[in-house]
Amino acid sequence: MATIQLLLTGNEIMSGHTLDSNSSLIAEQLSTVGQAVFRKVTIGDDLAQLTQEITDQSMSSDILIINGGLGPTTDDLTAEAMSAATNTPLKEHAKALSHVTNWCHKRQLQMNEANRKQAILPKGAAIIDNPTGSAVGFSCELNNCLVICTPGVPSELQGMMRESITTMIANRFPDHPAIATHRLQTFGIGESTLQERIRNECPNWPQEVELGFRAGLPLLEIKLTIRNPHHLPQQQACYQHLKNIIGDCIIGDDSASLASAVVSLLQEHQQTLCLAESCTGGQIASAITTVPGASQVFEAGFVTYSNAMKEKMLGVNPKLLIKHGAVSKAVVLAMAQGALTHSEASLGIAVSGIAGPDGGSTEKPVGTVYIAWGKSGKLNTLHLKLNAPRQWFQTMVTAICLDLIRRELLNIKGEPHYLQRYKHA
Amino acid sequence: MATIQLLLTGNEIMSGHTLDSNSSLIAEQLSTVGQAVFRKVTIGDDLAQLTQEITDQSMSSDILIINGGLGPTTDDLTAEAMSAATNTPLKEHAKALSHVTNWCHKRQLQMNEANRKQAILPKGAAIIDNPTGSAVGFSCELNNCLVICTPGVPSELQGMMRESITTMIANRFPDHPAIATHRLQTFGIGESTLQERIRNECPNWPQEVELGFRAGLPLLEIKLTIRNPHHLPQQQACYQHLKNIIGDCIIGDDSASLASAVVSLLQEHQQTLCLAESCTGGQIASAITTVPGASQVFEAGFVTYSNAMKEKMLGVNPKLLIKHGAVSKAVVLAMAQGALTHSEASLGIAVSGIAGPDGGSTEKPVGTVYIAWGKSGKLNTLHLKLNAPRQWFQTMVTAICLDLIRRELLNIKGEPHYLQRYKHA
Repeated sequence: MATIQLLLTGNEIMSGHTLDSNSSLIAEQLSTVGQAVFRKVTIGDDLAQLTQEITDQSMSSDILIINGGLGPTTDDLTAEAMSAATNTPLKEHAKALSHVTNWCHKRQLQMNEANRKQAILPKGAAIIDNPTGSAVGFSCELNNCLVICTPGVPSELQGMMRESITTMIANRFPDHPAIATHRLQTFGIGESTLQERIRNECPNWPQEVELGFRAGLPLLEIKLTIRNPHHLPQQQACYQHLKNIIGDCIIGDDSASLASAVVSLLQEHQQTLCLAESCTGGQIASAITTVPGASQVFEAGFVTYSNAMKEKMLGVNPKLLIKHGAVSKAVVLAMAQGALTHSEASLGIAVSGIAGPDGGSTEKPVGTVYIAWGKSGKLNTLHLKLNAPRQWFQTMVTAICLDLIRRELLNIKGEPHYLQRYKHA
Repeated sequence: MATIQLLLTGNEIMSGHTLDSNSSLIAEQLSTVGQAVFRKVTIGDDLAQLTQEITDQSMSSDILIINGGLGPTTDDLTAEAMSAATNTPLKEHAKALSHVTNWCHKRQLQMNEANRKQAILPKGAAIIDNPTGSAVGFSCELNNCLVICTPGVPSELQGMMRESITTMIANRFPDHPAIATHRLQTFGIGESTLQERIRNECPNWPQEVELGFRAGLPLLEIKLTIRNPHHLPQQQACYQHLKNIIGDCIIGDDSASLASAVVSLLQEHQQTLCLAESCTGGQIASAITTVPGASQVFEAGFVTYSNAMKEKMLGVNPKLLIKHGAVSKAVVLAMAQGALTHSEASLGIAVSGIAGPDGGSTEKPVGTVYIAWGKSGKLNTLHLKLNAPRQWFQTMVTAICLDLIRRELLNIKGEPHYLQRYKHA
């Protein structure tokens, strides 16, 4: 593989406040031509520092990708720094000027000095077309390294990487097969537990298949990576291994979410869903309705915070509320049944709990939650306790509710093993 | 200021998939002792590369903070790399061993080899206590640079930075006053527009007050930073400037959100809120109920996707639905009125629109949305068109709804200027 370094510029990136999504975008695109990033440096908007960094990195790389600093403002210093590092004067490039002129024209904007600045680049630089934005990219040779300057706006970077830069790199370093990653989304299994199970249950895991993880809340992404297309059968065998040992935890491929899996299953089984949410406050409904096509399978959501609303909207018997309290098995069952009756949906989920930080008692501490789910007249219930801050509690309860209905739709029997740790004593 | 570099290690950080929240946490803590990060390098889990990087960076820094690689697995290489870079053997540190022993004991865990590895550090390293995790931090001197090794888990890093490392740095580089940042959250104004307005309307902006931005969706954070506490009056004057020119767009200080502002205002004015959501699918309810204390002011949320549910749950007259369609001024008014009547809340918001990607028509294309908000019998309405993908559409509509009710509660008259661009032709 070629030695590829990445230089990210910009004060906003430096502060760490901004999600550095461009790195993963570049890594993903490089993998299609069999390459990876070796080292990444982030610095602020300082001309001398940027120039020095470009010089240093060019001496230890085959390819240097610079991201950011191509915009129209005075903070955008990449062209100037490249001019200094390559000892080449800046000049207006006709091709870049025509790009920015067209860009302004299409948007009925008057071209100003700031726009025009984006066409001033080191003499002799090769222009890289920007399919969406006003600033073109460019590349120069420096110390036997190909230096490629790209825009910080993710959509512009994506277009440029896909349409030009991967080809440039493949031409310079041919015969590297694409790195192929199979991504799986799982819920209910931790990274260390899974690693141990693979060690114990798949002793013949092929070394050509790299196992990677990305822990999110609430999902754990598993990545099966091969560096040569000849190893596709091994990759598929590993996928089968995972299905055998944690099949019930696999939500789907690529960017599947619990909500998208539930919507697909509801469509497939021609079922409809209704919700009665208290402590999750509409998060289950939100998750479901983020998925395109949710309207075909989602009937109604009731967010009932107060007891009065539980009675009025869902027909919960006030005697139950007085006798058992709003956070109880009896009430959550009545909420689910009420939602099913009022909405005519075929499946329902109801949840009632104490998200905190206030509202707990000795008997029902913060983190207590009751869930009811299933078909009218055939409802299941669970009583859990999650020790967690409010937002984490809401996120996890939402995920558990979606997973319970997913398992119901898939007819997976038995309680999910991961609930053990949340079972109320 | 001291020259401080940051070295982030770990394959998961390298891939760019993980949000690098540790950089901002370190930057924030350093600012309390008047320091900032000069340069940041990210590399994968490779011993030789890590050792080389430590050596190189120590030669160009006063302080090098290494983050990650202190854990128990074989991927965790920081101690080994430090041993190689400082040319010092590794040894078991009694203080570190006692820390990890206590840590396991408290959790009723049997200490294993992996845990024990965390006590094996370069000879002579100074141990830094970890208030929450199993791995202690440590520091060594190398090439006249103080190298500080910290854990990758954000909560552990935070505790260690706050309780030990800032003091270490302040002792080494005393007399640097804290950098004070006043953060403001705004909605409805863009960075470039605001910069231009400041240029035109605040020509005497004091140069001691740095203006910074962090663009999020949907909020724009404004940062007013001073590097010397003597400039506090100038910082306050700038805040007053901003209040004068964009006061109606300021949501609050620090980490205020539209939802937290609305919940506070509802509490302050002793009002209660109900919601009838169609295209936002529960996102307004979710946002509100993420705020602790929301239960005191939030009565009920109705998520009515289907026409049948709009009739049944909110009492919308079926004739209105037939005559005007679900996405119409008449229906959104009836939804808001229905929610107010059913819930007895004092204020209501209703929203009905077409989030896409399907469901649009020539007359009502994807992106069309009607909003009704206000008091029973005194409802306002708006008709907007947002050209955006589904998730962005839902996020923006949710934000606009929350902002409209915020402005109602603050008695800000007139339509927000930013709606101009979304007005239906």
